[in-house]
Amino acid sequence: MPVPATPPAGQFDGGCVFIDGAYAPLSEARISLFDWGFTRSDVTYDVATTWKGSFFRLDAHIDRFFSSLQKMHLAIPYSRDELREILHGCVRAGGLQDGYVAMVCTRGVPPRGARDPRMAQNRFYAYALPYVWIASREKQLSGIDLHVSERQRISPASVDPTIKNYHWMDLVQSMYDAYDRGHDTSCVVDAEGNVTEGPGFNVFAVKDGRVFTAGRGVLEGISRRTVLELCGTLGIPLCVGPLSVDALRGADEVFLTSSGGGVLPIGKIDGKPLPPFPGPITTRLYDGYWALHDDPAYNDPVDYGA
Amino acid sequence: MPVPATPPAGQFDGGCVFIDGAYAPLSEARISLFDWGFTRSDVTYDVATTWKGSFFRLDAHIDRFFSSLQKMHLAIPYSRDELREILHGCVRAGGLQDGYVAMVCTRGVPPRGARDPRMAQNRFYAYALPYVWIASREKQLSGIDLHVSERQRISPASVDPTIKNYHWMDLVQSMYDAYDRGHDTSCVVDAEGNVTEGPGFNVFAVKDGRVFTAGRGVLEGISRRTVLELCGTLGIPLCVGPLSVDALRGADEVFLTSSGGGVLPIGKIDGKPLPPFPGPITTRLYDGYWALHDDPAYNDPVDYGA
Ligand SMILES: Cc1ncc(COP(=O)(O)O)c(C=O)c1O
Ligand SMILES: Cc1ncc(COP(=O)(O)O)c(C=O)c1O
Repeated sequence: MPVPATPPAGQFDGGCVFIDGAYAPLSEARISLFDWGFTRSDVTYDVATTWKGSFFRLDAHIDRFFSSLQKMHLAIPYSRDELREILHGCVRAGGLQDGYVAMVCTRGVPPRGARDPRMAQNRFYAYALPYVWIASREKQLSGIDLHVSERQRISPASVDPTIKNYHWMDLVQSMYDAYDRGHDTSCVVDAEGNVTEGPGFNVFAVKDGRVFTAGRGVLEGISRRTVLELCGTLGIPLCVGPLSVDALRGADEVFLTSSGGGVLPIGKIDGKPLPPFPGPITTRLYDGYWALHDDPAYNDPVDYGA
Repeated sequence: MPVPATPPAGQFDGGCVFIDGAYAPLSEARISLFDWGFTRSDVTYDVATTWKGSFFRLDAHIDRFFSSLQKMHLAIPYSRDELREILHGCVRAGGLQDGYVAMVCTRGVPPRGARDPRMAQNRFYAYALPYVWIASREKQLSGIDLHVSERQRISPASVDPTIKNYHWMDLVQSMYDAYDRGHDTSCVVDAEGNVTEGPGFNVFAVKDGRVFTAGRGVLEGISRRTVLELCGTLGIPLCVGPLSVDALRGADEVFLTSSGGGVLPIGKIDGKPLPPFPGPITTRLYDGYWALHDDPAYNDPVDYGA
């Protein structure tokens, strides 16, 4: 489907949405109350970021989005190149350097009274906002306090977690658990009691120089992938597999990964400090993550020309 | 919060939404793309019905909605009586006799960049549309063909199923399974392989004069409750507890319950006919369900006066 002409840089200063096939200000970012994307959370999405005016690993996000679409029986009327053009257009029109860039596809609204999802016309939305952090800079420096909730992440037997999805009731309720107990954020477990992920991030532990993270039951985060690859490059031993709650509590270092901040060191688990903070391996991975933001192979600069 | 004056009957003929504290035509039924009700499916809702101009068991739906709100840490700015007034107003303005009447509360939009759900102002929506059937009248008469999917309903360890919610990816994907195999609709199982519910309905089996339905891991449907109560009134033996897939396949009769049609007899399971159809107990419960629509104790007539 043809993409409209690239909007002027800064036309919708501070944020831009692409909706009904056109660029628009954020105030127009609305969907029908009857869209199954809302009434059945029948939707998939992805979130890429820009940093200093450049997309980071955009290809990986686009790959994951198209893979999610296919698994969901959803389709968008744009090719990869057109999608890329739209995302660049949103960032450019929003005049954003450090941006949070979402692409969303909903089932749409089936004909009145119909219950067959195949009869709905899928809808596509994209938008760019200022970069969003999982935790504030102050909280990151003072040490995020992670609560390990007993709630279970929705099982892969119900919802394929490799499809990036909005099924977050478990995660949001675990955030209430965390706040009620005075912690900053939370992660949830699987049916076997192993650590999975949290609201917007994957979870890593470091023990005796080795890095651990869940191998299944979680979103395959792009930041997680970056860290797994960095472990290879930096020669840090890695175990991808079940991560027990005890292993997390007994870890030398714990960190989160997310497009909402990259590598985020954890300072406390359920209030118990994790010295040293930030730990040496977390620091190497943190530095490595941000260093890749200067590597042309991982970057896709936005054209802000008038 | 004060409710606006009751709209004139038929002002928004065919359907009416209550949004931002006012009655409006359906074309205005939209929510922000940034509302957590969408981006985290952080929302609860309920659906009541009107039949021949009268709400059926409206109190039960309002009870369930307020109970869901509380479990979700959500709140609406209306009392029970105000909510009732709004729902009546939507049906009246929509000029509807047989109506589908939804009440919805979303988390809302937290301040930009904030991730704390407590900082969001919850949003309330209601709307009335023409009555929606789980299956067309023809399909009901010819015999709905129910597919028993191997997919698992989202576990109560993740999402409390007694909170009416939009976490339907498992259910929608099971509908694709059903369509791909040539069946009409689907139900899903729990981790132990017992039958739970389907997209918009509870599932019942009848064997040797006894009625069976799942006791947990499902929404406590109001139509389900009506059938459980009718079993008591009519002296039909009842077992509420695990319902195995084999028991469902070997049943004498199978039916669904939903506000989208009441008691819906099933004609086939995975293509295999279930004679007799509709069975005698299903028929008694079907008749009992609709007879209650003439019982003043269960009804709350809409005032369509000018
Ligand atoms: C549930 C969940 N897990 C993990 C992540 C991290 O993924 P990524 O590194 O691609 O941002 C996210 C990101 O939003 C998420 O929602
Ligand atoms: C998942 C689920 N189960 C069961 C039901 C039936 O509930 P009720 O009889 O209250 O309509 C519904 C109704 O929408 C539902 O969504």
